[in-house]
Amino acid sequence: MTRAMHFDEIEYGRRQTKVRQAMAARGIDLLVVSDPCNLYYLSGYDAWSFYVPQVLLLGIEDRPVWIGRAMDAAGAAITTRLPADDIRAYGDEYVQSATRHPVDFIVEEIKARGWRSARIGLEIGNYYLGARAYLAFADAFASDKIVDASLLVNWVRSVKSPAELDYMRQAARIVEGAMQAAYDIIRPGVRECDAAAEIYRALIGGTAEYGGNYASSPPLMPSGDQVHTPHLSWTDQPYRPGAQVNLELVASRHRYHTPLGRSVLLGEASPEMRRLEAALCDGIEAALAFIRPGVTAAEIDATWQAAAGRHGIQKAARCGYSIGIAYPPTFGEQTISIRPGDQTVMQPGMTLHLMPAVWLGSESLVMTEPFVVTDEGAECLCRFPRRLEVIR
Amino acid sequence: MTRAMHFDEIEYGRRQTKVRQAMAARGIDLLVVSDPCNLYYLSGYDAWSFYVPQVLLLGIEDRPVWIGRAMDAAGAAITTRLPADDIRAYGDEYVQSATRHPVDFIVEEIKARGWRSARIGLEIGNYYLGARAYLAFADAFASDKIVDASLLVNWVRSVKSPAELDYMRQAARIVEGAMQAAYDIIRPGVRECDAAAEIYRALIGGTAEYGGNYASSPPLMPSGDQVHTPHLSWTDQPYRPGAQVNLELVASRHRYHTPLGRSVLLGEASPEMRRLEAALCDGIEAALAFIRPGVTAAEIDATWQAAAGRHGIQKAARCGYSIGIAYPPTFGEQTISIRPGDQTVMQPGMTLHLMPAVWLGSESLVMTEPFVVTDEGAECLCRFPRRLEVIR
Repeated sequence: MTRAMHFDEIEYGRRQTKVRQAMAARGIDLLVVSDPCNLYYLSGYDAWSFYVPQVLLLGIEDRPVWIGRAMDAAGAAITTRLPADDIRAYGDEYVQSATRHPVDFIVEEIKARGWRSARIGLEIGNYYLGARAYLAFADAFASDKIVDASLLVNWVRSVKSPAELDYMRQAARIVEGAMQAAYDIIRPGVRECDAAAEIYRALIGGTAEYGGNYASSPPLMPSGDQVHTPHLSWTDQPYRPGAQVNLELVASRHRYHTPLGRSVLLGEASPEMRRLEAALCDGIEAALAFIRPGVTAAEIDATWQAAAGRHGIQKAARCGYSIGIAYPPTFGEQTISIRPGDQTVMQPGMTLHLMPAVWLGSESLVMTEPFVVTDEGAECLCRFPRRLEVIR
Repeated sequence: MTRAMHFDEIEYGRRQTKVRQAMAARGIDLLVVSDPCNLYYLSGYDAWSFYVPQVLLLGIEDRPVWIGRAMDAAGAAITTRLPADDIRAYGDEYVQSATRHPVDFIVEEIKARGWRSARIGLEIGNYYLGARAYLAFADAFASDKIVDASLLVNWVRSVKSPAELDYMRQAARIVEGAMQAAYDIIRPGVRECDAAAEIYRALIGGTAEYGGNYASSPPLMPSGDQVHTPHLSWTDQPYRPGAQVNLELVASRHRYHTPLGRSVLLGEASPEMRRLEAALCDGIEAALAFIRPGVTAAEIDATWQAAAGRHGIQKAARCGYSIGIAYPPTFGEQTISIRPGDQTVMQPGMTLHLMPAVWLGSESLVMTEPFVVTDEGAECLCRFPRRLEVIR
């Protein structure tokens, strides 16, 4: 059986060590990793199977153990280096059953492996630890033995290794190609769904050297009556002359996600739109020039706000967040937010999405830059013209 | 502002009435709907925003209230018929914050609307009611006031209206086109990612009459070393002569999902593969001929097992499940399973995915049929040749 690993053993060892250090600092003996991003990060396990409960048990000094559904055990053998003994599977009778829950199986496994009275960290605030699964854990272990380990692994993930940055840069090449595909297809008379189809093709086909994979999120590309809302989908309608399209695309390369946002206008830009464009460009430029190791996320936000504010533009929502490994439903890492009050200090290897798009009710503009913090400053992951694209 | 509704007001009213009847039978005064499928079903709300907490409050006799993130309120106004007063939004300071949780806002809204001592139904076992959100509800209300309302709406959804069936049939047309696109592109030397790109293009571009939308799940199409595992993704590698590809595709039309599974072989079929093919075809045929209102899911399973068993084939996992509205991470409705012990009685309008694919370790074959239960029997949603496709 061929192993499909994306990183070498040294890298996985380093990741596990860092997570164990964070566990030790919190007095956690056993971390029950249920967030699929964190399973992938720590073991390489990568499959569309997170709709059923699956965990990696990471003891403070034991070999990690994967537990999932029987039909996914072969996938675990292919995508991880875990020995067969450390891949444990529950039968299909546990799946979506009214009488059994996979966590019952997981709990038995935890107890059988000697962790009966361990202090157990659960990813309570992460995706995919559902309320029912939590209640099954809470039922099985004393409440003073359960520790909230939400985002513990996510914070370790926030600083990327050179190998991880390589994948982020490959995803950047793919998302640039997809944005260009969008520019090439979006014209009056073309159906929105046909533009979406071409964008998907570019995101998945990737480049001649490497392909893309499914991303955590679909292309967001509202237009027409929906253009000033951020999260609605495309329609069957053809683009109309003069229409605006706000494109938020994201490419995935070995689960590393690089997003890119731009707005396209099928007609003349109003003075108001040009003002928005100038505000966003100046804000992005000022923020990127300011970023370096040692500054905080809140200071980046303030720098953006000051530059955009000179054009009379403010943004109520956060204007960026950390990015990296993702599965649905989001490519945000849920750790760092570029907004007032976030005192996270920038470190080399952090990757964020500077995302100062604005929706002002009657006007909106999307213009974003994913970047990595380097030893000296910020490096944009994408190289794509930073302007409101006007197509006539 | 244009409203983008997919059903008329009468249909939404009927759905709400059915859910209120189920609430009354359980003594539930207020249902907190957090599953995005159920928000869509009951209100029409449809956006890629379920990565933050959002709910529909459905009181036993009150107008429904949508609560979500501020930037999504405009999307709620477009995709639902809720009056502005019944669309309530929390600010971005609640999003992924260490000090606030959106459920705090939701709880205040529930109390302010007079439901302080109501019996509250929570979708504890559904996706997207995370452990942290649950704990915030549990903290705010007396434990004897919280009722487990998991899958309550899902069960109402299990019988489709004619309008819903129309969308399932449209999705069937789209997924047939995508399967044909797969047959057309998969050849030795073509990269798996390029085949995936064409499949996506067909799923999203749809037909000349209507487009597709993002589905709950990516195309699953393992090949090469991964072919005998169900949930791994495509790779960058070219297909090799003789390779097998197991295609599990799913199309979405206005969130209604119709899946279709087939296997492709780039070379000669072994006698063993032909035996598998005969077993699956006979099993499907026998099951479809057996299905009619009044029979149970378990009886369908037994019928399939008996027919396939005559070829020496058995399947440990369930061989089907109900389908309909979906968002990631799955297009299964989580209610009916075609397997031993499931005593659900078939009713006209139920839609299921007969999915007797088998993974036997060294051999596997995918062959599936989505169907609707009619007054007289079962109608296949797709019309696509039911055979192991051999491409030379």
